[in-house]
Amino acid sequence: MRKDGHDTFIYGSLIPLLSASLKGISQVFLIEKNITGFIILIAITVSSYSLGIITLLSAIIGTLVGKFGGADERLVNKGLMGYNSVLTGMALHLFLSGPYMWVVALVGSALAAIITAALMQFMGEIGIPILSFPYIILTWSILLATYKLDTIKLSPSLTPQNLLNWEFNTGGKIHFIDYIFNGIGQIYFLANAPAGILIFIAVFWAGKKLGIYAAIGNVVAFLTAYILGGEHTLIMLGLYGYNAILTIVAVSVVFTNENSRITPLIGILAAVLSVPITASVSILLLPYGLPALTMPFVLSTWLILGARKVLPRL
Amino acid sequence: MRKDGHDTFIYGSLIPLLSASLKGISQVFLIEKNITGFIILIAITVSSYSLGIITLLSAIIGTLVGKFGGADERLVNKGLMGYNSVLTGMALHLFLSGPYMWVVALVGSALAAIITAALMQFMGEIGIPILSFPYIILTWSILLATYKLDTIKLSPSLTPQNLLNWEFNTGGKIHFIDYIFNGIGQIYFLANAPAGILIFIAVFWAGKKLGIYAAIGNVVAFLTAYILGGEHTLIMLGLYGYNAILTIVAVSVVFTNENSRITPLIGILAAVLSVPITASVSILLLPYGLPALTMPFVLSTWLILGARKVLPRL
Amino acid sequence: MRKDGHDTFIYGSLIPLLSASLKGISQVFLIEKNITGFIILIAITVSSYSLGIITLLSAIIGTLVGKFGGADERLVNKGLMGYNSVLTGMALHLFLSGPYMWVVALVGSALAAIITAALMQFMGEIGIPILSFPYIILTWSILLATYKLDTIKLSPSLTPQNLLNWEFNTGGKIHFIDYIFNGIGQIYFLANAPAGILIFIAVFWAGKKLGIYAAIGNVVAFLTAYILGGEHTLIMLGLYGYNAILTIVAVSVVFTNENSRITPLIGILAAVLSVPITASVSILLLPYGLPALTMPFVLSTWLILGARKVLPRL
Repeated sequence: MRKDGHDTFIYGSLIPLLSASLKGISQVFLIEKNITGFIILIAITVSSYSLGIITLLSAIIGTLVGKFGGADERLVNKGLMGYNSVLTGMALHLFLSGPYMWVVALVGSALAAIITAALMQFMGEIGIPILSFPYIILTWSILLATYKLDTIKLSPSLTPQNLLNWEFNTGGKIHFIDYIFNGIGQIYFLANAPAGILIFIAVFWAGKKLGIYAAIGNVVAFLTAYILGGEHTLIMLGLYGYNAILTIVAVSVVFTNENSRITPLIGILAAVLSVPITASVSILLLPYGLPALTMPFVLSTWLILGARKVLPRL
Repeated sequence: MRKDGHDTFIYGSLIPLLSASLKGISQVFLIEKNITGFIILIAITVSSYSLGIITLLSAIIGTLVGKFGGADERLVNKGLMGYNSVLTGMALHLFLSGPYMWVVALVGSALAAIITAALMQFMGEIGIPILSFPYIILTWSILLATYKLDTIKLSPSLTPQNLLNWEFNTGGKIHFIDYIFNGIGQIYFLANAPAGILIFIAVFWAGKKLGIYAAIGNVVAFLTAYILGGEHTLIMLGLYGYNAILTIVAVSVVFTNENSRITPLIGILAAVLSVPITASVSILLLPYGLPALTMPFVLSTWLILGARKVLPRL
Repeated sequence: MRKDGHDTFIYGSLIPLLSASLKGISQVFLIEKNITGFIILIAITVSSYSLGIITLLSAIIGTLVGKFGGADERLVNKGLMGYNSVLTGMALHLFLSGPYMWVVALVGSALAAIITAALMQFMGEIGIPILSFPYIILTWSILLATYKLDTIKLSPSLTPQNLLNWEFNTGGKIHFIDYIFNGIGQIYFLANAPAGILIFIAVFWAGKKLGIYAAIGNVVAFLTAYILGGEHTLIMLGLYGYNAILTIVAVSVVFTNENSRITPLIGILAAVLSVPITASVSILLLPYGLPALTMPFVLSTWLILGARKVLPRL
């Protein structure tokens, strides 16, 4: 009754690999669920075939680096070696151009897994999760390197600016309904309603609480950015929203504090904070023409998680 | 013989809160003494009523965040949850403008306490005091965010500059006597003789040793900046002095080394170092138009405190 | 049969001091061998007398700071308190000008030892070697400070640039033979064939394996930089090479991983990575006109050493 080699390969290796890879896609949203990852992959693929392909390949590459590098199996199976690779592959696909873009994006996704491992080691000591920090520093580094390496070409959408000549521009109309799906979509670099709806479904599939907090984070970001006077075009594109959503999910659902009765409020506070932090990070990066990526989410979340140890009621 | 409710409130809550808050004001100078805090509060209020009000409110807010957040009571009562809030409130009051300045300054002072908690956690591991680092990164972040958030307005005194067009300007007269009270006053953003004298008195009140070292640090900074060729206007404003004073107090009085016979010399060395570090930090911040704040003090002090563990005779 | 005082001084103090100092020179190349240090000192002195003098003086100063500061004797005797001083002294000699350049370079070499001690303390906790990080941050700081301190003059070869006006320039001829000795020479800021040959000899003297890996790293850097489209003049000057050589030596020879069968491959991977990292770091520093120094080596090595703990097969 032994299985033949082919079956063994599929059930013994391929299925777990795919499952871990799909979880890698969902872990971008701090969710460990392959169905959620699969629905999100569809949302991405529907928006852009090539982006869908790079997402899946990056997830697989990150997972494989974890497996062959000898990482703890539970880590790999939870998709934790994959999500930084997913984000890196997608970001490089979007922000690079030229004939070697694919090669760089896939090599980048492998490097993301190595940097993930390094940062797990460095940050493990202080007991704070690395979140998507590995992806951020890797992607920024590669985007900067394009200026000095002729083979890698930057997308013309990214241009350095001088803070001396900076002009603030509030123009643009605000429509809450048009906004709502961009905020959640931008977590995967998407800004269209069908993708946003699919991702919402995927998140609700993983848990009602996750979905509700994501929705709250989305609204909080909109209101905060609007009240603080953020540029309307950026608000509408969801560029203040995605960091707030990730932050509230991290603070109120994933890394919760059992001592606190005000966890929901702290999550909202963290989401509010992510908005001015988004503004700060963007200005800091202005002279280099780099996008903020998920750095505001990482900073807001680290801030609250760190503060909790000294202020246990947060 | 029980106290009535009103008394209980005053003696049980209000007085300790005020005491912790005044200590928060003195902790900016690394001193834990409410009388010192009170005299300094007068020095600030005499210079500017509104600055005095924001100083006291910020100190109270920081202390309250510590109390309600559940921080260790000793920490709160020593004023250690307050001093970063004091500095943040004052800095935002000075570097922001527009109708919402007060709101942002007071919210900022609350945030400062949360960041203080987070950094205590992160840096506790390596056994180095956080000093005023929380205030620095928070204030820089908020000042940067103003460029992208219309509601918060930056004071026109802060302008980004391009290092390519940087012109060095030594001009300006040097008068040691005019200088002497600016160096110490700038610790609280003040540059007038009466305030400087009051702060000197407040520091001497806390201890003769503190006052003497503060005076030495002030002179050392003047001489170092003059010899190294610093801009005369900046020297005269005390902008090289306050970091040196804080540094020598930290290294030679507060965080002393019992194994060292040359503690006074090491303090002077650290004060000397704070001068070129002030120059470096200022240039690094030039493209963003940010002030150096107390970053030079933090860096010089960390340097010596860290080095002492490996070089125990320092 | 007791030795007289003079002999005691020479054998008891001077010889160990000189030996530790020469090892400080070799430790720049991650080698602990005084003969290697001596040959390299000759290579430097032949290229420039004054650079040779500053190299030896800086090594002695760093070692003395370690001795008198009370550092662990083994640390001092291995040259580990000296190599950051050597690099700092040399870099300041090259990148500063004006009458006080020598004073600043020698004071800088003493400071390098103090910063080395501080960073050993801070980074000891996470179990990662400090490499030449102390030298890098110190040298950058001093170079930045020149803009605001009239006494210290920057060499005109360093000029800030604006990324907005950045023009990529691939021009220049590629000759592999001309290149080969620049890559290794640049570890000590040298770009001439005799110096490169002497340094190669010095490294082989310390161990055949060291020499072979250094040669491999040199070739890997050349090919990687060429394929990625690096500027030909920079490639030819060895400015992509020296970081790759140091990285492969660190990863494959000095900090090896006993669990890994692919150590040579990982070393080559790390050397390859150091090339785009060199590009990124250079662009990041562009607005400040600072040189990358050995930062790419430090980052690539930290990355692999950190990742190994989570990915034990690397």
